[in-house]
Amino acid sequence: MNVSHPEVHPQESSAIHTDGGVANAPPTLRMNEIQGMPGTPGGLALRFSQFVFAVAALCIMGSTSDFPSVSAFCYLVAASGLQCLWSLSLAIVDIYALLVRRRLRNSKIVIFFTIGDGITSTLIFAAACASAGITVLIGNDLNNCDVNHCAQFETATAMAFMSWFAVSPSFLLNFWSLASR
Amino acid sequence: MNVSHPEVHPQESSAIHTDGGVANAPPTLRMNEIQGMPGTPGGLALRFSQFVFAVAALCIMGSTSDFPSVSAFCYLVAASGLQCLWSLSLAIVDIYALLVRRRLRNSKIVIFFTIGDGITSTLIFAAACASAGITVLIGNDLNNCDVNHCAQFETATAMAFMSWFAVSPSFLLNFWSLASR
Repeated sequence: MNVSHPEVHPQESSAIHTDGGVANAPPTLRMNEIQGMPGTPGGLALRFSQFVFAVAALCIMGSTSDFPSVSAFCYLVAASGLQCLWSLSLAIVDIYALLVRRRLRNSKIVIFFTIGDGITSTLIFAAACASAGITVLIGNDLNNCDVNHCAQFETATAMAFMSWFAVSPSFLLNFWSLASR
Repeated sequence: MNVSHPEVHPQESSAIHTDGGVANAPPTLRMNEIQGMPGTPGGLALRFSQFVFAVAALCIMGSTSDFPSVSAFCYLVAASGLQCLWSLSLAIVDIYALLVRRRLRNSKIVIFFTIGDGITSTLIFAAACASAGITVLIGNDLNNCDVNHCAQFETATAMAFMSWFAVSPSFLLNFWSLASR
């Protein structure tokens, strides 16, 4: 790959799609085409999953009365909120791209998505791990579940992990798409 | 990139290097050549950093008397131990590759390194975040540092984060190298 000559030709890709024929397309599987990337139905499904799980983590943790007394739980609320905003924004972009049948293959857009996904996935994974550590400390090590909302803490942590599971493919696919162009 | 035809030609690369001439080599920067990848001095330096920081985290956390009472601290010890073994093994492979002047560009080797780096970096980052959550809980939220080894917990956590900082470039470079071939 010649990094000093990053040439992108989105016109050619759209030309293939608009003429409705794939007879001249190479028969090999192209990594640029796989589901889960921005502007594909799979990508939109991933963004929707990230958003739903992050909202669930945010609401469940926010509904407990004593989460502000633990820094890690406050951090989980903040990271889930950021993940909600990011995933919702990119879901809207995906819906727009699907409606107007445009493919998001611009180099700068993919770099922006990759960096954003990398940052938000790292933040929500860190928050989920910190919350998991404290939940295990309260529940297993100290056996203090009778005076704490262990079930809600555990559910919120699990939702944050699920959101991270949904962000990771987006990050890896964007990074792969960036490297393979 | 044609995924269905993953062709690798290590013979060509070694031929260029053994004849001592680079007159016919393309003048563009190749991502396959950059420092930090397996078989380069930069890669060896990364492995050495990972190993040193993981050993430091393991020893500092292991030297406290009360770490077995907290699950997250036990997990940090286990993850640091795994990171030590992985980084030491790959440092030995890097030293061998540098001594015999072979470049580790085989597709299967890079896939193995990428998966291994991905798993170990995720584990040690999770352990560091869980320990950080508990350290902040003890030190800031509960103000219980007078009866706990806060300084040692914090130092071990910081060492684990430093080890993760050194593993991440290895993972991203291997993944990039895998995608760009």
